[in-house]
Order: sequence, then structure tokens, then C-alpha cells
Amino acid sequence: MYPESFTGYQVDSSETWTTFHKREFQPKPFEDYDVDVEIQACGICGSDIHTITGGWGPKNFPLCVGHEVVGKAIRVGPKVTLIKQGQRVGVGAQVFSCLDCRQCKNDNETYCRHQVDTYGAKWPETEIISQGGYASHIRAHEHWVFPIPDALKTSQVAPMLCAGLTAYSPLVRNGAGKGKKVGIVGLGGIGHFGVLFAKALGAETWVISRSHAKEADSLKMGADGFIATEDKDWNEAHRMTFDLIVNTANSSDGFDLGKYLSLLDVHGKWISVGLPEGSGQEVKSNMFMENGCLIGASHLGSRKEVLAMLQLAADKGIESWVEEIPISEKGLADAVTRMKNNDVRYRFTLTGYDKVFSS
Amino acid sequence: MYPESFTGYQVDSSETWTTFHKREFQPKPFEDYDVDVEIQACGICGSDIHTITGGWGPKNFPLCVGHEVVGKAIRVGPKVTLIKQGQRVGVGAQVFSCLDCRQCKNDNETYCRHQVDTYGAKWPETEIISQGGYASHIRAHEHWVFPIPDALKTSQVAPMLCAGLTAYSPLVRNGAGKGKKVGIVGLGGIGHFGVLFAKALGAETWVISRSHAKEADSLKMGADGFIATEDKDWNEAHRMTFDLIVNTANSSDGFDLGKYLSLLDVHGKWISVGLPEGSGQEVKSNMFMENGCLIGASHLGSRKEVLAMLQLAADKGIESWVEEIPISEKGLADAVTRMKNNDVRYRFTLTGYDKVFSS
Repeated sequence: MYPESFTGYQVDSSETWTTFHKREFQPKPFEDYDVDVEIQACGICGSDIHTITGGWGPKNFPLCVGHEVVGKAIRVGPKVTLIKQGQRVGVGAQVFSCLDCRQCKNDNETYCRHQVDTYGAKWPETEIISQGGYASHIRAHEHWVFPIPDALKTSQVAPMLCAGLTAYSPLVRNGAGKGKKVGIVGLGGIGHFGVLFAKALGAETWVISRSHAKEADSLKMGADGFIATEDKDWNEAHRMTFDLIVNTANSSDGFDLGKYLSLLDVHGKWISVGLPEGSGQEVKSNMFMENGCLIGASHLGSRKEVLAMLQLAADKGIESWVEEIPISEKGLADAVTRMKNNDVRYRFTLTGYDKVFSS
Repeated sequence: MYPESFTGYQVDSSETWTTFHKREFQPKPFEDYDVDVEIQACGICGSDIHTITGGWGPKNFPLCVGHEVVGKAIRVGPKVTLIKQGQRVGVGAQVFSCLDCRQCKNDNETYCRHQVDTYGAKWPETEIISQGGYASHIRAHEHWVFPIPDALKTSQVAPMLCAGLTAYSPLVRNGAGKGKKVGIVGLGGIGHFGVLFAKALGAETWVISRSHAKEADSLKMGADGFIATEDKDWNEAHRMTFDLIVNTANSSDGFDLGKYLSLLDVHGKWISVGLPEGSGQEVKSNMFMENGCLIGASHLGSRKEVLAMLQLAADKGIESWVEEIPISEKGLADAVTRMKNNDVRYRFTLTGYDKVFSS
């Protein structure tokens, strides 16, 4: 029982990735800067699926995944200053960084070499594997716990904490805003936040998708235009017109990268935020030569960016497109199966925590 | 005879790439903004070798290559304002751009979609193939003709007009200067300019090479450090410390790109300036995730950058490492053979034009 142990839904192996076992596990020792969160909701992220299915390779099982957590701060360490007990807070895909290295001191703490992922990572100086948000509680360093503006609904804000941030950070770091033309490749959980945030930042926003299936949804989200790569010569009319393309696609199969890059203006950027399974893509210098474009990747974002993103969402009344699923063995089995099949528009949030966990 | 025809050394096929034929060819019609240059020297660029050997695919033969040209402006069109008759001038790898498109208006004229390469390209609205600087004269739009500061020696400035600019532009466009750590991969013609210019701009400059063979030369050029990738764990001590790496390597065979990228600080950039022959490289998102780095390419540079580069070279007394070779059938055969074998430290400049061309 809390606070000695937390209770959560764990998967035991990648062969049994749809079978969740509700059981107790030991959290890391509580330290001076830690915050304990009683969880109320958690988004289901593509990373959860890559992890439990073994798509990203062997993991530390048994494992409780989930890193889009919203709940109530019920205990704060004696040195905590950023969070007040009783506050509604969020936790994303990271729970620790050293705050002492050059990266941490430059608002790049997400790239800290001592960072700890929210689940599946060994806590420094322990043998304890971090466990995620399909659980009663989570314990995290205060730097990675975020107060949530009152205007945001719990089930809608949960997926912002990983998917939302993953889309938001590369947008602001690469200048998305008024007068810029931004492309979002792939309209999944991250992509739909890409559209919502790029529009909120003032950019002309286009969705680039394989087929026209999600065109109506894209426009409903506020996209200014839609490109389907199944259409003939789809790139021609848009050559050298995009300042930034955020690639949220979960697979690079059959991707003709050169055509996508032809959309970019001089020194425009193609930023991938997914980690597709399987092999990579061949790149050749001549794919970059026509426009001197760049390709790169982005990993989550800083605390400052989380807070700015949440404030932007509150100020602009941004609503995530979320389907709520009550947490349970069966609810989880259904949800992860549907996620694996891309049968979600555009994110699941687990709710009903009070029904299955006693506080 | 000039001005109806120019005389130059042409190659007739990629099978006979070391055989140069001195013969007359027809230049493009002289127009209002054109400048005729009587050539005094021309650098031998790697592009010349890729072109005549067919390494970059079939080309328009017979062809006179060479795009690092220095000479005297002997005729200027009635609308020319940038160049005075009699001036010593340079011409690089481009001879025309529209000056009207968005790229041209943003100092990105090197990415103009109507650009004409100095050799091997069809002049717009003609059937004439552009011919390069292994010749008596060249005709170019004034925008692509550059006055050369008196302080610079003709044979040393010639290779700056392609190789130098190719190194200089990505350095200045990506912030190389005081407080920045810059890597130059490959110490060839372009790489040696990378070292000279990165140092002149004030950056901490490292050469990254396969072996230690060029370590002494690198330090003589002013490099602050040298990394040989044949050494065990060569990247470890430098992880996440470089702001910018300019990759001048002419081949990507056996390249472990992930290790190079591990050198970059958060959002650091890997800019390739070569166009290696053959297949490309496989990239995966996880190669970029640790530091959110970017890879891209750069193509030449703008007129403004050429002028700034030449002024910097004059102000700082930068001396290219050049071996002079008198132009002739035999001199050219020897020079292109040695270039193909990487037997040059670090650039050839063809001289002695007055001996073989009558003015």
C-alpha cells in the first residue's frame, strides 16, 4: 500500500503484451526533491506499445508503462519549491535529470545524459526500475512535475504531456509562427497536436498524409491545407515552400524522403519526432543539395516548454481529440490492441482510476 | 577567335577523361549584363573529376571543365554596374541565376531553380552548353563575377571561388565564430579551406580524419585539435561538444555516421558539402535522438558571401595551400590523374594561360 508500494497494471513479456496484471511494486526511495502524485488519468502513447510489444527491443519486464500522467500532488519532499501539495499536476515521459550538466543548464534537460525515463529505466544508485502511469501513483523529481492550468480538462491535458510536448517543442524551437508555412506529416496522436499547436502559434499549417482519409478531420482541427502523398506529383505544387516539416509518422516504409524534402524552402528543416521500428532510410547528399535543407529529430522538450505549452492550450482553449477508456485489465487490452492497429482518433486517455485503486 | 569563339581544353567522353583536346567553342551570345573574362588561372576542383570521369552520371561532352576562375574583365555589357573593365575578377561554379525569385531575393541565389552551372549546363533559350575555365575566356552574368582584393595572389585565390566558398558559406550560415567548436571532416581541398576560414572566424577548430597522416598539416594550418577515426573509441572524449561539423569527405564508404553525430551538442549540425558518388547512408531516428542534432547539406554560397570571404582572406592574410601546374594537355592529364588519386596537398591551380592562349 502507498506510500511503501504503488499498485499498477504490469505487462510481463512482449509475448503477452495485451495481458495486464494488477499488482504492487516498489517505488524509488522518496527523496527531498520528490513529489508523489495520486494518478487520475493517463494517456496511452505509441511508446507504450513499442515498449510492451518489444518493437524497440528487450525491456525490463514486468513493467507498468504510461507516461502522460495527470493527478494530484499528495506529498512533496522538504526541498520542493515548484509544486504545492494538493495541486493538480502532470508528469510526462521523463522523471529525472541531473540539473547540473551543460544541457540541463541550457533548457536542454531532456538531453541530459543522466535523464531517467518515466518507465523502464533504472533509477540511479538503485536496482529499481521506473514504473509508469497505468498505476495508482507516480514519484518524480519536482522539475518533471508540472502544475496544470485550471482551464484544461484532465483527460484532454494528459496526452499533451508526451504527445503534445513532442509536437510543440520542435515547432517553437524552429520558429513556427506567423508568416511561416509548417507541415505535419502523419495525423496520429502527435500529429493532431502538431496541427493544433502550429495553428495556435500562428503558422500556416498543412497536414501531409498518405491518403485522403483524414482530410476532413485535419481541416476540422484547423489545418489550412492537406496533401495526400497517394496523389500523382503531390509534391510539385509545393516545392520549396515549407519552412518546417514535423514528421510524426510511425513508420518509414515506402517513404520517398527526397520528395518530402523537396517541399522545403532553403535551409528548411525536416524534424522527425517518432522512433519508427525497423530499418532506417537511405539518404544521399543530393537529396539536400537543391535547397540546403536539414533533417533531424527532436526529443520531448524542456520544463519551460511544458509550462508554455499548457498556458498556450489554456489561453487558446485548445481541446485534444481524446477518447476516454476506463482503466482495467480489459480496458487496457482493448486500448493497446486498438493503438497497435492505429484505430484511434486521436488519443486514448485512461480514466476511472478511483474505481480500481483505493486511495 | 575571341570574341566570336573561345579556346579551351575539352574532354570528349568519360572513357577518355585524361585526354584533353585544345579546340575552339562557341560561347553564349553576349548580353547586356555579361562580363567576358580573359582567364589567367583556374583551380582544379573535385567536381571536375566527378564530371569528366562520369562519376556523377552522363554529361554533355565534349566539355571544358573548371570553375575556379581568375582573370581580367576585358569586356562588360552596357548594363553592367558591378564590374569594371580591366578589373581582376573571379568566377566560381555558377554563372547565372534569375535574380527575380524568392531564393535570389534572399541571398540564396545559389539555390535559384534557374541557375546555370559554370560548365555542362544548357544556357537558357539556347542550345549552348556552358564551358568552364580550362579555357582562354569565360562569359558570365555580372552577379557571378567577383572583384578580387589586391592582397590576394591569383593562384591562391582561384580555389577559393568554389572550394573556399563551399567551406565558408556553411560556417558563417551556422554561426562558426568565437566560443564555438567546429569540426572539419576530411582534409582535402575544401577541408583545408574549412580549417583556414573557421580559424579566421574565431572558432575552435578540429580536423576529423580517418588516419593521423594529415595531423601535422592540420596543425600547421591552425587547427586546434585533430581526431583520427582509426583510433579506438575516438568519439568518446568529444561527445556532445561540437556546435557544427562540416563534412567535406568525398566518400561515405565505411562511415559510421552515428559516431560522428555523437560529437554534436544539442541541435548541433552536420553539414555535408560534398556529393560522394555511389550509394548513400542509412539514417535512423535514434541516431538523432540523443542530442536532437541535424544533418544537411550546403551548396556554394551567395555573392555577398563570396565578397565577404575574399575580404576576410585579404584582411587575415589567408594563404591557400596550392600547387601550381602550367596548363597544357599533359599538365591537365597529370593533374586530373593525381586529383583522382587524392595526390594533392591541397589544391592544384592551373597557370601559364598566356603561354597557350593568344590574346
